[in-house]
Amino acid sequence: MKAVGLVTEYNPFHNGHIYHIQEAKKLTGADVVVVVMSGNFVQRGEPALFDKWTRAKAALENGVDLVVELPTFFAVQPSHLFAEGAVKLLSALGVSDMVFGSEHAHVDFLELASQAPSIEQGRDVQDKNQTFASAYAAELETKTGFKLTDPNDILAFSYAKAVIKLGVDIRLHPIQRLAAGYHDQTFLVGQTIASASSIRLALHKGKLEKIQDVVPSVTLQAITDGSHTINFEEKFWPLLKYRLTTDTVGQLGQIYQMAEGLEHRLAAIALGEPGPKSYQSFIKAIKSKRYTFARMQRTLFYTLLNVKVDQMQAAMQDPYLRVLGFTDAGQKYLNEIKKTVSLPLISKVDQNLAKANLRLDYKAGKLWQMLANQSEQQDVTRKPISVKSTKLSVNREIILGD
Amino acid sequence: MKAVGLVTEYNPFHNGHIYHIQEAKKLTGADVVVVVMSGNFVQRGEPALFDKWTRAKAALENGVDLVVELPTFFAVQPSHLFAEGAVKLLSALGVSDMVFGSEHAHVDFLELASQAPSIEQGRDVQDKNQTFASAYAAELETKTGFKLTDPNDILAFSYAKAVIKLGVDIRLHPIQRLAAGYHDQTFLVGQTIASASSIRLALHKGKLEKIQDVVPSVTLQAITDGSHTINFEEKFWPLLKYRLTTDTVGQLGQIYQMAEGLEHRLAAIALGEPGPKSYQSFIKAIKSKRYTFARMQRTLFYTLLNVKVDQMQAAMQDPYLRVLGFTDAGQKYLNEIKKTVSLPLISKVDQNLAKANLRLDYKAGKLWQMLANQSEQQDVTRKPISVKSTKLSVNREIILGD
Repeated sequence: MKAVGLVTEYNPFHNGHIYHIQEAKKLTGADVVVVVMSGNFVQRGEPALFDKWTRAKAALENGVDLVVELPTFFAVQPSHLFAEGAVKLLSALGVSDMVFGSEHAHVDFLELASQAPSIEQGRDVQDKNQTFASAYAAELETKTGFKLTDPNDILAFSYAKAVIKLGVDIRLHPIQRLAAGYHDQTFLVGQTIASASSIRLALHKGKLEKIQDVVPSVTLQAITDGSHTINFEEKFWPLLKYRLTTDTVGQLGQIYQMAEGLEHRLAAIALGEPGPKSYQSFIKAIKSKRYTFARMQRTLFYTLLNVKVDQMQAAMQDPYLRVLGFTDAGQKYLNEIKKTVSLPLISKVDQNLAKANLRLDYKAGKLWQMLANQSEQQDVTRKPISVKSTKLSVNREIILGD
Repeated sequence: MKAVGLVTEYNPFHNGHIYHIQEAKKLTGADVVVVVMSGNFVQRGEPALFDKWTRAKAALENGVDLVVELPTFFAVQPSHLFAEGAVKLLSALGVSDMVFGSEHAHVDFLELASQAPSIEQGRDVQDKNQTFASAYAAELETKTGFKLTDPNDILAFSYAKAVIKLGVDIRLHPIQRLAAGYHDQTFLVGQTIASASSIRLALHKGKLEKIQDVVPSVTLQAITDGSHTINFEEKFWPLLKYRLTTDTVGQLGQIYQMAEGLEHRLAAIALGEPGPKSYQSFIKAIKSKRYTFARMQRTLFYTLLNVKVDQMQAAMQDPYLRVLGFTDAGQKYLNEIKKTVSLPLISKVDQNLAKANLRLDYKAGKLWQMLANQSEQQDVTRKPISVKSTKLSVNREIILGD
């Protein structure tokens, strides 16, 4: 069976994702769509709006055949590590092709990546008043003439770099990101596709009616029926403040990504008088030209989860394929690759696994539950979702523009 | 000036405390009443109902002349360490006498303490199914015939042990704890004195009207006007659960008083499925015959505050006299002893002190603020309360019985 691989967060699952799945099938003629999806926390260091099971189910009911969790130690990372982790998993899962969005889909990203400077070269040229990403982009532009600034281009480029670095045999298919109104935070009348960030913003503001046309019913239902982390900051901040108050700066200094004495700054601001009143004002106070918002938020996530550098480095050496769900076709594909798959295939997590390899995902799940006030456990004893082909939603053909 | 010393928690300050102050003056003819008071957390490992400033002010307006904080590392401790810390401070403050309640005020506690077994002897005879306190009491009874079971007797005995151990020159005056209705959790009609625990219980149940006759107006006002930690468990539990979830058992094992592998039990129960819903059900689940409720709660307090064994041991070596407030007479007394006082006298805390010696009190204050949802800081830049003699309440003579 031919499999096409997608790297996703589905935060939340929306019509643009259905379009992505449909295009992936059309472009590659694949028999199954295999998805690697961030778990309960996403790349920006935030809790996913809905838990990984809810998001996996939405995908499986809308054209995806197999969902595997991108472990926390790969998911909550800058784009080059995020992409490398995702490509490692997709390659282990035997996909022959990858399809992803890009603001410049005509670019040959493999060619671009082969000419690109190394991460280390990027670090060498970074000065005190810029982020690593902008230093790297400037260096890349000098070398190749290509301006790497759009978010999907950056991911596309990162996938290509990862494919080269890992030496895997995966064909890359960038598809054009949809035009105006897609990436920004407005909704157009008659529009059926909007960006995940604009949907999150509408949810944050409580404007449920705005998103009715741009998400499938399964997502609408999740908002009204289930646990979610819309406005997660209200629960995130007391816990973070508590940890910054009670841990020593020595302990905070061991946290993953707590670089350049940042722990002193975080503790001083959190403990300052009168001190920040909310997560938003805290993150505003700690922002600097040196770090992006996402980088800062990831560091705060690792602080909250109390993940030390050594734990993280050990975890990253030991990836696995955690199956969240499949359709009949996905299950058939899993059986086909089972014997040759190069990473451990995990479909059930017990207390031993939760304490060993899957420790970070397990802790992240517990934290997600706290933020969402959800009682249902996220890992131990949960079984993969199995979606029968007969139960699949009739896939709407997404119509672009109006 | 002659000073009498009292060891207190004032949780909350009530009419029985006024009686205690008045008796102390009468019995000793002292010029000033010097009080050592637990700070924002009390011996049982709970946050005080009101912050240390509110409680110090209540005392100063009702006959006390000087209030010094019993540091967290002495206050949140079993009775022998609590008493030893308090006696150390009172001795440094130059008091000649101590007055305290006891269920058996006719007993010569110094004599009893001189015949008592050592702490180590108590540990030797403790078996797996009993607490240290009951093992020690049994050993004491064998040696002396005295049954040490009542809470005030235990403290009285502990003060005597401390006086002997520290070799200080302080006369001890036990006064009889008031009769029936005082120690239990009922209120009698016409009663003007009730125990602090019965008052806390009434507050917990929201029965403010029950306590009107048994506390001075300053305490009633604190309940209605200020921040408090009545029902603190609702905020305590999410933070504790968060820490037990995100710290490794290795980290938890370093916590002060986390003995005999208790960290494994705490983590397993906190992370269990479905897991305890509240602090009350958690503490019920972890209780064993081996530990008293108070001992368990102190361990949880140190867990929440993230205090390691080595930090605690270092802190206990380095006590100080943190002045919370005084009357004119108290200030006069402070000036008199200033030059000869044997411990550092601290009346203002800056960031440096908060990071060094007073670190635990500072962190405890921050934690208290979180539990009480209080924005006013507890330590840095706060000045001692100064109560002018003219502003003193007319001290009501407390009438016993009815």
